[in-house]
Parts: sequence; C-alpha cells; structure tokens
Amino acid sequence: MKTYRLALIGFGTVGQGFSQILRDFGAQYEKDFGACFRITAVSDLQKGSLYDPQGLDPALLLRTVETTGSLESISAPHKGWDALKTIRESNADVVAELSFTDLKTGEPAISHFKAAIQTGKHVITTNKGPVALAYQELNSLACQHGVTIGVEGSVMSGTPSLRMGTEMLSAADITCIQGIVNGTTNYILSQMDAGAAYADALAEAQARGYAEADPTGDVEGFDAAGKVVILANLLMGTRLRMADVDRQGITGLTVEDIRQAKQKNERWKLIGRVEKTSAGVKASVKPHRLPESHPLAQVGGATNAITFTTTLLGDVTLIGPGAGRLATGYALVEDLLALHRISGE
Amino acid sequence: MKTYRLALIGFGTVGQGFSQILRDFGAQYEKDFGACFRITAVSDLQKGSLYDPQGLDPALLLRTVETTGSLESISAPHKGWDALKTIRESNADVVAELSFTDLKTGEPAISHFKAAIQTGKHVITTNKGPVALAYQELNSLACQHGVTIGVEGSVMSGTPSLRMGTEMLSAADITCIQGIVNGTTNYILSQMDAGAAYADALAEAQARGYAEADPTGDVEGFDAAGKVVILANLLMGTRLRMADVDRQGITGLTVEDIRQAKQKNERWKLIGRVEKTSAGVKASVKPHRLPESHPLAQVGGATNAITFTTTLLGDVTLIGPGAGRLATGYALVEDLLALHRISGE
Repeated sequence: MKTYRLALIGFGTVGQGFSQILRDFGAQYEKDFGACFRITAVSDLQKGSLYDPQGLDPALLLRTVETTGSLESISAPHKGWDALKTIRESNADVVAELSFTDLKTGEPAISHFKAAIQTGKHVITTNKGPVALAYQELNSLACQHGVTIGVEGSVMSGTPSLRMGTEMLSAADITCIQGIVNGTTNYILSQMDAGAAYADALAEAQARGYAEADPTGDVEGFDAAGKVVILANLLMGTRLRMADVDRQGITGLTVEDIRQAKQKNERWKLIGRVEKTSAGVKASVKPHRLPESHPLAQVGGATNAITFTTTLLGDVTLIGPGAGRLATGYALVEDLLALHRISGE
Repeated sequence: MKTYRLALIGFGTVGQGFSQILRDFGAQYEKDFGACFRITAVSDLQKGSLYDPQGLDPALLLRTVETTGSLESISAPHKGWDALKTIRESNADVVAELSFTDLKTGEPAISHFKAAIQTGKHVITTNKGPVALAYQELNSLACQHGVTIGVEGSVMSGTPSLRMGTEMLSAADITCIQGIVNGTTNYILSQMDAGAAYADALAEAQARGYAEADPTGDVEGFDAAGKVVILANLLMGTRLRMADVDRQGITGLTVEDIRQAKQKNERWKLIGRVEKTSAGVKASVKPHRLPESHPLAQVGGATNAITFTTTLLGDVTLIGPGAGRLATGYALVEDLLALHRISGE
C-alpha cells in the first residue's frame, strides 16, 4: 500500500466532489489499486484552512461545509494557513490546485504550481488557467524537480480527453482536434434549437448553474479558446497562446439563424478546433452549422465531445460530461492513479 | 533509446498493417518516445518464415509480399521456422500473436501465448480468441513469468476501448458497457436501413471484404459475444465464458422490421451489452431498436462505438474504427508504447 498525502487548495465544488469520491470509494481504491489517498490539508480563502499531518476525514469536511458553510468549526493541529504556507509547509506529497480560474493571468494558480513544484510536490489540477497559459513552463519546472503535473480535468472534466491524446493516440499522428468543449453554450444552443430565444436560454442556463452571472467567458468563447490552446499545446506540440485562437462566440446567433439551419436538417454548434495545415497550426472557436448526421450535431445539453482526426486510426470521437461535481472531482482521481502507475505500484 | 525486438506470428492484414506503420513512422517513434521497434522474425503458415537476429526491413517484407504473395524470396540467416520454434528460439522481446481467430478453442493462439510467456517474452495480440477464452489464465501465467500481455486490438481494433476501461475509467465504477462492436453487422443494418434486403446487404458486405464467405461468426453474433466476454472479464472483473452470453444475431430481422422502426424514428442496431445487476452480471448480444437521438443509433457503416455507464462520470462514449489494416495494426503500437511506459522509459 502506498499512501499519497494531499493538500487541497480550494474547497469549492471540485474539492467537495473529490472529497465525496474519497469518502465513498477510498477504501475500494486501497483494495483495487494499493493506493491510499489521504487529505492532510485544506486551504480555502472563504471557508478557512486546516492542516493535520495525520489526515482529515473527508466525511467530516463535507458534513461541516454543508451544515455551516465553513471549515472553521473543525479542530486541527494547524489552522488558518494561507495557500502558499499550506503548499510549502504541509506534508503533502501532492497539491490539488483548485483555486479560481483566471484566463488572463493564470494567477494565483501559477504561483501555487511553482511553490508546490519547488518544494518537491506533485501537482494535480482541474483549473484551465495555468494549463492554458503556462503548461510548458510548469512542466519543465516539474521535470527539473522530479515531480509530475496532472491536468486531465482542465478539458472535459473527468472524461479522459487529454490522456486519450497524450497516451493512446500519441503515435497515431493527430492532424485535427475539434469538438464541443463548452457545456454552457451547448446547453444554450440546444435550448434555442428547441425554440427558445437567446436571452431566455441564457437565463435558463444561469438558473441551472451552468452559466455565471457574467456569462462572457462562456458565450464569447474564451473558455472554449482556453481548452483549444490546451489541446493544441499538449497533444500537437504547439506553443499557442490565447490570442492565437480565432475566436467568435454565440452571441451573434439569432432564432432565425437556428430556424434556417433546422430547415436544412442542420444544427449550430460552437466548435473549438485546432488543425495542422501546410501554413502551420490553425486554432479557432466559432459557431458551425453541422448536418444532423454529424456525430457532434447529436451532442446536446451540457455534454462535451471531441473528435480526434488521425492518420492511422481515422476519426476517434469521445463523448462525455464536461462539468459536474463528481465528474470533475474524478479527473483528480485519474491524475492520481496515473501518478501511482508510474511511481507507486 | 530502448530497442524492442519483435516476432510476428502471422503476416496477414494486421501484420502487414503493423509493418507499414513501422516503415512509415518507426523513425518518428524513436524520436518521440525513445523506443525502437525492430522486427527480427516473421512466421506465417502460408507466406513462409524468416528470422534475422539483426532485424528485417519492414519495407522489404511488404514489397515482397505485395509482389510475390510470399516471403520466400527474402534471404535471412534462418528460414522455415514454424510458429513455436520462432517464438521459443528467436531473440524477440515481444511476440505479436497474429494467427487466425478461433472462438471455440482459442488455438493455435493460446499455445503461442504460453510458449512466449514461458520463454520470458511479452505478448501482444489483436486476436479475440485467446483473450475471450483464456485471458485470466494467460495473464496469471504472464505475471508469474514477469512479462505482460497487451490485447487492445481484440475489441474495436486500435480505438482504445480496453485501455480506456482498464486505466481511465477503472476507478469510476463501471456498471454497464454496451455498444456496437461488430462492424460487419452494423454495415449490413445500415444498408438495410437505406432500403436493401438482408441478402443483398450481406452480399455487398462480402464484396467489400467486411464479411467472410461464411458470415456466421458475424451475423449470428458470435464475434460480438466474444468482445462482450472480453469487456466483461477485463473491465468488470468477471469470469464469463462465451456460453454465458445471451446471444441473438441479425438474421431474423426483416425489411419490414426495419421499416416499422423507421416510422417511429428508431433504428435497429446489434448491441453487445454487459451489465451489473442485483442478480449478478448479465451479458447479451441482441438487436435493439434505438431512438435516432441515441448516440449509438447514429453510428453507421463499419464504425464501432461503446458507451461506458459509470457511477462517477455518468455515460462516456467512444466511437471509432472497429477494423482496418492500419487501425488494427495501430493497436499493437498502443500495446508496445504501454509496455514502454512501464518498462523502458
């Protein structure tokens, strides 16, 4: 049995989903994989911070946050440590970077990554920011320090789109990657396809928690562009930046556009795409009209899908959840098990 | 750079597709992965046998078979060795078992596996027979001898359905696996959906090389049942045998059945399925009527698709080729790179 001590930086939806998985499946993972995942530290800006070198009970963390909205009432040997102190001074083997996403600066996540790596800790994350903006730099730093970084959840949550590309299709010569990588806009377009106006569909998405109060990041395609950059840089060896993505959101689409497409048995989808061309790699996020028979046209609601076009395998399509408490928490489990496969077994 | 010496047992479509990949991408793999895959022996019942401890040129093997239908005109230090002698006495690190498929006995492949493992060689295969009938036994034997077996291509050719389940979804609690795992019957049903009678669709499938002269294995569901057994045993920890699969083929479906489904916006698909139930694991291969909105209903022609239902991720669907010279050859590359990840890097 190998034990991995974990520090969670952030205890929002993803941290709680991950804790729920450890609460419910931790014993099973010990039995199935010989790996014990033990949370020893949690540091959250709003909910408070706890550090117990011996471990914190995920059931207690969840129950306390659900009933009090905070972690403060839990006793622990060390309390109130901020993120950087927790990263540097806790006994964690692995830091789970789960702070908020900033696609302009990547902070504070990039600083969290660096602090963890420089103190010899592996990092796992579901946060697009540091991965879209600084993956190569962070990965080089990790290699220098003999640690690894796991980023599966930064695209399609726990649906293993990145590892599919980096491990399984890595020798198949990927020439194009395209797909529906933003569930919020796909939900809005599905609602519009069913007859709703844009504003009503957006309001419904906000009511369901799919869209934020300021929906710009989703509806203008920034979130999808971040994922396109990640797919390109991790799976095609490029060094794209956000500004390299030819980006157009869905706010220009009207009910009439949707109706006209429907008449021709077509559907509008916001497609993120990166393609090798004779003029170099081209990346874009744009609404496309797809025939209903196209595999991506059938992907409705908040589901995500990616088609990899390869020289040796042709097209391989992966469809699965792009968000969700457990689905995103599970991405961290995948990264931990990948680490365990190379280091622990 | 780590070199893997390979013995190919069988030089039909898959062996040739694999050789073509090494001819065209071998240098790239050395650069990208630090792994050199070198064929040192080929033994084929019809085309002859060659063994050169220094390596055989894949381009020469392909050119010679294409022009003469045989390997006999190639000079090599050792010629005419049968499969077992090649497996036991060649210098191969890895045996690629590519002989014919027998879903009743698993032979001669099972004997090839045992000979390879007992002489300390890893085995990779795209042959369903030994995997459906004897996976656990062969894998235990491999563990005892400190070698590994790679079987990715036994389901969905190079589309990484098995590794998706064993590595990425292994902790997500898979409760059901279902899909279109036989391209021949899916092609026939797609033709019938477009108006063809069963006999005509079958004749067309035979003309295109999708169906064999005796189509029983495909149209009566034996091939799909073999794949269901493999999925269940590798991904759900069962020990199913072929006879445990409730199997029904497509020969009973009439043009009228297809027409009636179409009227209700439904499509007939031959679905292989294995599910955990309170009464244990149930496995079946049966034609199902699916609504056109179902992800599997849209999968046409010889394409394959599998939906994994999991507790933590919900449904994850993988769509890709189920056959083909390069797509099946690529499955062997995936198995070799997986071996390289754990042993060579």
